[in-house]
Formats: sequence, C-alpha cells, structure tokens
Amino acid sequence: MSNTYGNIFKISTFGESHGKALGVVVDGCPAGIDFDELFIQQELERRKPGQSKITTHRKEADSFQVLSGVFEGKTTGTPIALVIFNEDQRSKDYSHIADKYRPSHADFTYTEKYGIRDYRGGGRSSARETAARVAAGALAKLYLKTLGIDVKAYVSQVGPIKLDKSYKELDLNTIEDNILRCPDQDKAAEMIELIDQTRKKQDTIGGIVTGLAFHVPVGLGEPVFDKLHAELGKAMLSINAVKGFEYGSGFDGVEMYGSEHNDEFYVEDGRVKTKTNFSGGIQGGISNGQDIYFRVAFKPVATIMKDQDSVNESGEAVTVSGKGRHDPCVVSRAVPIVEAMTALVLADMHLRNKSSKI
Amino acid sequence: MSNTYGNIFKISTFGESHGKALGVVVDGCPAGIDFDELFIQQELERRKPGQSKITTHRKEADSFQVLSGVFEGKTTGTPIALVIFNEDQRSKDYSHIADKYRPSHADFTYTEKYGIRDYRGGGRSSARETAARVAAGALAKLYLKTLGIDVKAYVSQVGPIKLDKSYKELDLNTIEDNILRCPDQDKAAEMIELIDQTRKKQDTIGGIVTGLAFHVPVGLGEPVFDKLHAELGKAMLSINAVKGFEYGSGFDGVEMYGSEHNDEFYVEDGRVKTKTNFSGGIQGGISNGQDIYFRVAFKPVATIMKDQDSVNESGEAVTVSGKGRHDPCVVSRAVPIVEAMTALVLADMHLRNKSSKI
Amino acid sequence: MSNTYGNIFKISTFGESHGKALGVVVDGCPAGIDFDELFIQQELERRKPGQSKITTHRKEADSFQVLSGVFEGKTTGTPIALVIFNEDQRSKDYSHIADKYRPSHADFTYTEKYGIRDYRGGGRSSARETAARVAAGALAKLYLKTLGIDVKAYVSQVGPIKLDKSYKELDLNTIEDNILRCPDQDKAAEMIELIDQTRKKQDTIGGIVTGLAFHVPVGLGEPVFDKLHAELGKAMLSINAVKGFEYGSGFDGVEMYGSEHNDEFYVEDGRVKTKTNFSGGIQGGISNGQDIYFRVAFKPVATIMKDQDSVNESGEAVTVSGKGRHDPCVVSRAVPIVEAMTALVLADMHLRNKSSKI
Amino acid sequence: MSNTYGNIFKISTFGESHGKALGVVVDGCPAGIDFDELFIQQELERRKPGQSKITTHRKEADSFQVLSGVFEGKTTGTPIALVIFNEDQRSKDYSHIADKYRPSHADFTYTEKYGIRDYRGGGRSSARETAARVAAGALAKLYLKTLGIDVKAYVSQVGPIKLDKSYKELDLNTIEDNILRCPDQDKAAEMIELIDQTRKKQDTIGGIVTGLAFHVPVGLGEPVFDKLHAELGKAMLSINAVKGFEYGSGFDGVEMYGSEHNDEFYVEDGRVKTKTNFSGGIQGGISNGQDIYFRVAFKPVATIMKDQDSVNESGEAVTVSGKGRHDPCVVSRAVPIVEAMTALVLADMHLRNKSSKI
Repeated sequence: MSNTYGNIFKISTFGESHGKALGVVVDGCPAGIDFDELFIQQELERRKPGQSKITTHRKEADSFQVLSGVFEGKTTGTPIALVIFNEDQRSKDYSHIADKYRPSHADFTYTEKYGIRDYRGGGRSSARETAARVAAGALAKLYLKTLGIDVKAYVSQVGPIKLDKSYKELDLNTIEDNILRCPDQDKAAEMIELIDQTRKKQDTIGGIVTGLAFHVPVGLGEPVFDKLHAELGKAMLSINAVKGFEYGSGFDGVEMYGSEHNDEFYVEDGRVKTKTNFSGGIQGGISNGQDIYFRVAFKPVATIMKDQDSVNESGEAVTVSGKGRHDPCVVSRAVPIVEAMTALVLADMHLRNKSSKI
Repeated sequence: MSNTYGNIFKISTFGESHGKALGVVVDGCPAGIDFDELFIQQELERRKPGQSKITTHRKEADSFQVLSGVFEGKTTGTPIALVIFNEDQRSKDYSHIADKYRPSHADFTYTEKYGIRDYRGGGRSSARETAARVAAGALAKLYLKTLGIDVKAYVSQVGPIKLDKSYKELDLNTIEDNILRCPDQDKAAEMIELIDQTRKKQDTIGGIVTGLAFHVPVGLGEPVFDKLHAELGKAMLSINAVKGFEYGSGFDGVEMYGSEHNDEFYVEDGRVKTKTNFSGGIQGGISNGQDIYFRVAFKPVATIMKDQDSVNESGEAVTVSGKGRHDPCVVSRAVPIVEAMTALVLADMHLRNKSSKI
Repeated sequence: MSNTYGNIFKISTFGESHGKALGVVVDGCPAGIDFDELFIQQELERRKPGQSKITTHRKEADSFQVLSGVFEGKTTGTPIALVIFNEDQRSKDYSHIADKYRPSHADFTYTEKYGIRDYRGGGRSSARETAARVAAGALAKLYLKTLGIDVKAYVSQVGPIKLDKSYKELDLNTIEDNILRCPDQDKAAEMIELIDQTRKKQDTIGGIVTGLAFHVPVGLGEPVFDKLHAELGKAMLSINAVKGFEYGSGFDGVEMYGSEHNDEFYVEDGRVKTKTNFSGGIQGGISNGQDIYFRVAFKPVATIMKDQDSVNESGEAVTVSGKGRHDPCVVSRAVPIVEAMTALVLADMHLRNKSSKI
Repeated sequence: MSNTYGNIFKISTFGESHGKALGVVVDGCPAGIDFDELFIQQELERRKPGQSKITTHRKEADSFQVLSGVFEGKTTGTPIALVIFNEDQRSKDYSHIADKYRPSHADFTYTEKYGIRDYRGGGRSSARETAARVAAGALAKLYLKTLGIDVKAYVSQVGPIKLDKSYKELDLNTIEDNILRCPDQDKAAEMIELIDQTRKKQDTIGGIVTGLAFHVPVGLGEPVFDKLHAELGKAMLSINAVKGFEYGSGFDGVEMYGSEHNDEFYVEDGRVKTKTNFSGGIQGGISNGQDIYFRVAFKPVATIMKDQDSVNESGEAVTVSGKGRHDPCVVSRAVPIVEAMTALVLADMHLRNKSSKI
C-alpha cells in the first residue's frame, strides 16, 4: 500500500469506510499558516454525501478533530493530524456481500492481493477515503492562499451532455449556484435531470470535472519525471472512479498541426505571456504563468441497484443485488476532491521549487 | 529536478541533448537476471532518430556502455549504470536560438526556474533524454520476461486518422511490419502519407499510442495514491509531448451507464475472469489479471520549420526560424518509450507487491 | 520536519506533549498479522512514566485506540492508525517557561526554525513522542515474531557504573526483574541507588542501553547507504537524548589489530558461522546470521530542578527554574524505545530484502 | 540495494572496485553554482590510494569526467553525472579468493543476499565506492561555500594513540601538514610509526576521525526522525569500516550530571550562544549555530596479509592468504570521505530547511 502523497508537503491518509475513523497526517506543512478550521469544515461539507437529491443519501456528519500540529491558531511546522470519526459503523448491512466480488469494485483484487478484506462498504477502497484528502487539501489551499494561488473545479460533462463553452467563457462565480457545481445553469438543469432519471433507473452515469489553477507562479514542476502535469495526472488518477486525464489541448491536440498548436510568446506589462494556451499553462513540465486547466474523466460508479452476475470467494456463481442507497453520479462531489488534489500538488511543487537555484 | 523514477526498481537518468553523454543508473534491479546486451541495443535502435523517412534525420549511433552492476552476464543486485556517449555535440547549430524562447518549448520555463539553460537542442528538456528511459526499460522488460509479463505498444492514431479496431481485433505481430509501428497496414499507409505531407509542409502533427500489458498477475498496484493506473498515467505524462492518458473505457466511459460499464465476474479454468474489460485490467488500482490497455495522446511536436513570433530573454520581440531537420510526428519513435515506461512501472509494482502479505 | 521512518514498513508519527493526542500511522504493514492489542498495550506500559521511583512521576494512562487497518483481529494491509489521547493538557503549568529557552532543550532551535513553538512540555520535541514509536514498534515486533526474530534491550551503564559482563554472560530473562531493566541484579541495585540520589539532588544522569537482535536471517541491510547498522544508528540517534551509537566492537575496536578483529568463518550444522563476532552480526552492511548487538549512549536529560542561566525570546538574560517532577535517568524507559526502533528497522529491512534477487 | 542518499540534494552512486567505472549522479543540486573542476579533482586526490607510505600502494588515477549538468562553468539544476573510469581491471588477481569468504569482508553476506557476487576486489562492497562519494561531496562543499559553511575532519586516534587536545586547542590549518592528516605533529609522528610497523607486521589497525562543521546556520535538521545528528550518524556509519559514531559529549556524556552537561544560553553581539557546547552544535536534532563536532570509529580493515581460516561457497574449510598490497590503516584517507558525507548531509538539510516556515 501507498497511502502517502507528496515530497515535502506530504500527506498520509488512513481509514476504512466503516471503520472507527478516517484521517490524515500532514507532515511538512510550513509553520506560520493561519489554521482556519471553519474553512476546512466547509470543504468537507462540499464533499460529504447527502447534500442533495443527486448524491447518495447516506448521512455522514464528517466533522473533524485536530489532534496535533496547531498552536494558538497557527501551524507549527510539526505534523498535523486531522481525524473524522465515523458515526455509522453498522457492519450488518454488508453481510450480503461479505464473500461476493461486486463487479468493477476492488473486492476481488484486494482479496487476492492482501488475502483479507474489510468488506464493509468497500473498506479502504471506498471513496469515503477521499474525505481525508479534502481535509488535507483544504490545508494546502490555506498555504496556496498565502501565495495568491487560486484553485477551482467544476462539472463540465455528465453522460453525453457537455458544456460547449470553455472555462474562459463561463462565470466561475456561479459554480456553487446549483447542486451539480456546473457554471452553466441551463446545461446544469439538463445534467441534473439526467442524473435524477439515472437514479430512478437504479443505475449510474459518468461525467467529467474540469480543474483549474490561476495565478500559479512560473517554475512549478520537477522534470523529468515529476513534471507538473505528470503529478497532476497521477493525483487525479488516484481518485476513485477516474479513467482519464488530459491537460491543455489534451486528446484533441492530437489532430492539430504544430503551427496551430504552438503558443507564441509576447510580452505584456513586463511579463512573458502566450497568445494561445494549448499548453494548459505548463511547458516542459513546468508552470509558465498562464492558466492551468485540465479535465478528469469519471466512469459511472460501480454500485448500482440492479442485480448482477458475479462469483464469490469460493469461485461459485452468485447474484449481487444492490441494497440501500446509491450515488447515481459522483461528479458534483468530485469537484472538491479534484480541487483538493490540485492544491496538494501545487503546494508540494511550490515547496520543491525553493531548491531550484542558489 | 526529479530525475528518479520508481520505489524499488528505481532509475535515475541524466544527460542533455548535446552534452557529453546520456545515461541512467538503475538501483534496485534484482540480482540474477540474464543481462541481454543485444536486446537492450535493439530497443535503443527502435527509438533512435533517422530510422525512416517519417522521423527526424538526425543521426545518432546510440550505442551504450555498461559501467557497472553486471558480472559474468548477470545482474548482481548492485546499481547498473548504462551510458550513451553523444557523438554529435556541435553547439554552433544552436547559436541562433541561444537567447530566444521557442514557442511551446521549455526554453522560457527552464530559464525562469533555473536562471540558466543549456540551449543546445533543448538541453535536458530534449526528448533525447528518453534514450536513457528506453535502456532502463529494456532492463525492466528482461525482469518482466522472467515473470512471463509481456508489454507492447502501437500507433493507433495520427492526426485525424484513427484505427477503428480494438487491440483484440488486430494482429499485434504485424506492429513492426511498417515504419509507423501500426498493426493495421492500410491505415498505416494513410498515416504515413499524412506524416510525409506534414513534413513537406514543414509542420508537425500529433498522434496516439496504445499501450498494452499481457499476463500481468493479479495484485500489482499500491492504493490509494500509487494505484497501478495512476503510476502508469504519471509515467506516460512524464514523456515529452504527452497531453493525455486514459485507460480501459477512458473518456468514452463517461457516457456509459454503470449497468453497461461494470465488468461481471465469472470463473474459467479455475481463474476469476471478467466478461467485459472496461476496467482495462485494473480494479481499485490493482491489476485483476485481465489485459491492461491504455491510450497516450501526443501533441504535435513544437519544433517546426516555419517562422514563429516569440520573445528573447531580454523580452524583445523576435522571430524564431526553423533550421535543419525536424520530426514531423513522434509516435513511431514513441512506441518503444511507452513500452519502456510501462515495463518500468510494472517491474517496480511487481517488487512492491512482494510485501503485501505475510 | 520528517516524521516518517521506513521505506516499506513506514511509520508517520504525530502529536505534542500536551496536545490533544499522539499517534502513528503505519503504512506498509503486511496483511495477515495477528493484531495482538494486549501486547501493544503492554509495550506502551513499559515506556510510560510513573512506573517506579526512578522515573518521572507524571501520570499518563497511555491507552491507545486502533482507528484503522485491522479487521477481525488481523492486519489488512491498509494503513494502521494508532492514537493515544492525552489526558493531561494543562497549559498553565508551562507559562513560566513560555518565552524562555531551557538549556540543552530544543526551545531555541524550534523557535528559530519554525518561528513558533508549542512551549507546553516541549511540544513536539518532548520524549512523549516516543510513545507513538513504541506502539508502532510493537506492531513491528508482531511481524518479526512471524519470522522468529527476537529483539531485546537492557540497561548496561548508569553514570560511571557499568556492567562488566557481555550480553552472552548475562541471563537476559532477568531484564524485567528490576525497575531499571538491567540483567545484573547487583549492578542494578547500585545503579538504582545512584539514580535515586541523583533525583534527590534534583539532577539527572546519563546511561547506556545495549540493544540485541537474535535469529536475524542472513541478508538484511541495503548497501551502500542503507547498511543495516547505518539504519540502526540513525534510528537510535533519532531517539531523544541519544549522543552516540556503536555496534559490534564499536569504539573499542579502534585499538585492535585486523588479525584480532577479523571474524573467521566456519561451518556448523550446515550453516556458515563466525568464531568471534566483533562484526556485531553485520558484515558489509548486511546481517550475517550472528547475534546483532549495539550500544546506545543517553546523555543526562536536560530537565533538572536546579536554577540555570539562560535567555528568553527577546534575548534578555533570565533564570530557568525547575518545577514539578523530573526524570532523573531515562534509561529504564528507553529500553522499550530502543527495542521498538530496532524492530522497526528490522521489519523494514526484511521487507526490502524480498527484492534482492529473482 | 540503496545507493541513493539525500532528499533534495540527492546522490546515486554506482560502480565496482574492478568494474569499468565508478560514478555518481547528483540530482537536485541547485543551479548557478560555480563548478570548480579543479577543486573536485583535488578532493579525489586526497582520497586516492598510493599517496604515501601509510596507505595502500594500489595506483589509481581517479581522474573524473563530467557527463552532464554543467554548462558554461555553472550547474544548471539538471542531474550532474561524474564518472571515474577504472584503469586497472585485472580480474586474474582475484581468482584465488573467487569462491572464498574473506573473514570480516562482505563476501559471505553479498553471496547469500544476491546469489551472485563480483569477487574482484570486493566488487561493490569495496571502499573504492567512496571515490564517488568524495566527488559528490566536493560538489556539496561548493554549495556550502556559497553559504559560508566550512567542513573539516582530521585523524584523532590511531590504535591506542589519542590526541589529548580538543579541536579547539589544535591548529586546524596544519591538518594537511602530515601524511596522516592529524593536526598534532608529535602525535602524528607516533601514529605514523605505529601504522608503519603494523604494515610491516602485515596487519591493520583502527582509528578515529573527528568531523567538524563551522558557521552552520541555526535551523538545519528535520525532527523527529531526520535529526541532524541522526543523518550525520547514518552517513558516517554508511562508510566502510565504521563501527561507531558520537557527537558532542558522546559516550563520555553518559557519566555527566545534567547540571554539568546542560549548555546555558547567553547573548553576544545580538546572537544567542551557549557557554559550553556539550550539545555538539545540535539541540533537538536541529543545528543551534555553535560548532558541530563528532567522532567516527574505524575498525582495522579486514584485508590483512596473514593467513586466515575460512570457508568457501561450498562450505569447505579453506585458508585465505593475503596477496599484493594492503592498507594498514584507513583513517588518513577516510578524512576526505568523512568531510564529503558531512557536506552532503548539510547541503541536503540546508535545502530541506527552506520549507520550514512561510
């Protein structure tokens, strides 16, 4: 297992879906940051289930405790442990799938790899784990705030319904104006309708989250292996249900000619800028001062309410039946997770960049 | 900078495009592997420029030397240093761009980050660096061979021309039958024609490489951050010119319903298998024994022969003119690089998995 | 800060002396280990203050909670979080030293490095942090138990009073027979008397702990930098108040000739053994199957009850007065800490060794 | 194997005693350092064999090549590869010990761990590997020079002959005035005589090197595991033949009372200083601005010219006979190695400290 992310701003998460608690230890957070507990709690609220009719109805309070690393309202440079105790640990709900491998879940692979598996709600493989990332990401955002860096994300596609405007043409202040976190209110209504119908069909549907970072200084990213976009890609792909990542022109850039795709430089107000930004704010793996933008593809979540064929640990054919509540589409809740991971990558890269030159 | 990749099977690459030498130190390669020098040289040949009319004509011998870590034909468990001396170090060719920022190259970001830049052929940011990866990847392939794991890649798109068959419908033994490394001979001919025309237009075009791994045992991948696909994604995104990565159903999976996308389990010959494989052989970040497949998007390379607007280090407007030879499309040469990085990820993950259980 | 130790069996500790809680996340513990809660609690009891007249009288319950990573009595391969809530968080006791730099404490260096310091009981620099190490070390011992490896430590010197017998001449089963954890009952009585007098003088005194590991298989240790004794040395030197480390012949070996010091090999019962063991069970940085033994020097702890000259944060001359209770000699409580760190090093090295050869 | 040291200023060494070449890749050296090739060569000269009658007579040119990372006389922030080609690769000399385990060498442990061993001159376990460390350390010294930090070492004991003065009472400018690198000329003469006699006896003898660092700023060291002295200890213990490490009061501090040992603070010229320095310049694992001093114990080297009993790979009793030349005492050549490792630790810690606070 590797539950640690980051080189300097380093996080270690722990906890299972239905275990006693989830949490994270942040080791390497610089001292002197104003520790805004309210902000961290608000970020957790954005991720938690049961927020609206398009998310799972499972209720989780998700209130966190600070166990260490903060003194008189400031970070001290020592490790910061944040813990969220689970209120709901009813194991009995999961007895019906205890020895069954749910299709496209991690049940089979965890059992094979570890020889044992906490089957309650997916255990460690549950997306519940991302609560710890959001808490740590909120702390990273507080660090980025001291640098003027701004991280945002929004839903840009649900099933086949896509936004036809780029992030530049949208009013990003309206992201939180609907339950989907989509800054195009008309499209959002369509998407919400699709999700609601999908829920009624006891099914799930995928979607895309667009990630953004503004005012990132030039110089973040560590070639050749830890290029900024490579770390962003890894961070996004490490989120449950993510199947793809592209930045700047992405997969569409494949069809362009170099003469179209190259971003010509010019100088404005004494700063070097690019006329276009197919590079997505990253050149040679290093931020170039332009907006960073990328897209993250989420598959339809595997938990559906329909019956499915599968096998159990003994290799016998079984039927897996859905039970309880399910999340018809995760993208609205994925928005704060994408932001959190982006913030963690940028915070770590900002600290790493301090050693680039004498 | 971070020029080290891997946790156990760990590589550190070094070298600039026009410096004295390129190379790699592999630290953590298990002892006892038959060190097949010829095979490593062959892999380097597959990547080297000047192979055909669709690649750059720059000539590089790319013959490597083994400085350490091999004794009587076998790896000894000690670090293996492989070095490729550059034959061609003519700096004069680059004087015309010494202080200019070439559009969509790393000239600007390197200069800002490090305060200094080896401008000869892009220095460290040149794709020449990938020769070291291919050498290390060949060694990783030799390790995977002892395990029966097979890694392959091929060109599946150039500009707008795409293969309409999946890897299952293609004869992968024909990949090397054309200079493009595309296993559909008709499509390959079309793509080669497009690349040739692009070269004549002094321009470049993007493309997609499909990566594959067969016979991967169940259990590779280290959740929650080092999921197998997250590491594959990072590894691919760290290759020059890559803009996107998707595995299994990828971005297309977004439009599917969970009931379509879920891979139902069954048992055949005593092994647990899945009926479909939208998961791309990875569930919960861990290989499940099915084929691993993914796609890597390459943008059109930034070096074109046309004049472009830009600025120099003093912030003055300048014209950047192409000179010499250029690579109209990198995908044919990217195939061995994608394979190399895949092999490195799998070798490392195989070793990491040894600690999963008692 | 670096609060993470280990490469595969990796621990991250957190918590301040008078914060809400201390704890540790163990990431990389193999699945399938019987999680013996009682044993872990017993190990914590051995370290905790207030055990006897020769330790500090501060009362701490030191009972721990398991937040994650254990299911149905076994480790699951997921991160194991162990937390000890502090019962005693009275900040007022420390107001008298809030802005003073206590001599030979970390007050000055922490304030300079981080710009802020939790002054309550030394905050993060307090030896209270070692409780988390003991908990993690107990888990490492449970892993080593599955391998038959046995770790032990005992007090071999207090002030000028030394044992004149080697570990081979002592009955190690009697270590816990006295409050000092010294297997020579007569010497122990002398040492205890010295400590008691030191306490009455409101002073402190140093000592030496001898560490041992038996039945360690051949092959543990990763040259050239992570030699087994180098990691043991680092682990010991990372414990509060440690000033020196030596293994095998140690500093005394300096005065020997090679012809005396070399450990000649012979074969017994089909196993390669050494006639002498000046190597301390480690050759070339790798365990050779013989007993591992080493010595760890602890300085007199800095907290004394006498008045001392110092300065405060404003650079003014001040007097630092001792108050409350103090620990006249830490070696008895250091025994379980030395064992814990030894176990952590060996567990990590055992897992790392799995990748040495195909 | 772990041939990588450092977190930010990271080195990876490679090479066997009688392989093609030795070398090091330095990844993370900041850009902009004046790359003084002559200085690096001089440092290598200080370590190389054949310098004087008290070292081995094996001749090695030890001239190095820079393969990457330097441009127009400055470091560029990219990895710096330094290589020393071996001139002397005569394998035949070692046929007599090819399958024998030399006492107190790494022959047995390497064979067991890796299943294969380059027996020529000890292969990777040879102290020849330290040449790469000295080259990298010289680069670290060039970085420290930009910060005003000064690193020194000298021989303070050979066999039973010890200096009776502390580093403060010696003229450190005279260290290089004799072939032993001992700043007490009378004692040096005695020690040299002892070494010369030991050589004639075909034997070896141990010794102690004292390490020093001056003008180290406050704040270096990363508690709780990477305390400055813990990293120094690990670095020293990773050097061939080292059996012990102590800093500040070290093992002698054990016999002191806290009231004697504590270093009281005072202010002079606006700087916080300590009256005594039993702490050795490090408190709580962090440099406090005082002189750093420590001692490193070297055992007598294992290669002697006398016959010894041993076994071979088949477990048969054999006689190991010395042949050729040997190094009667390594301490004079160890001086630059101790300095190199000290410089590497301090360079890395200086870069790590940049992230301590906002």
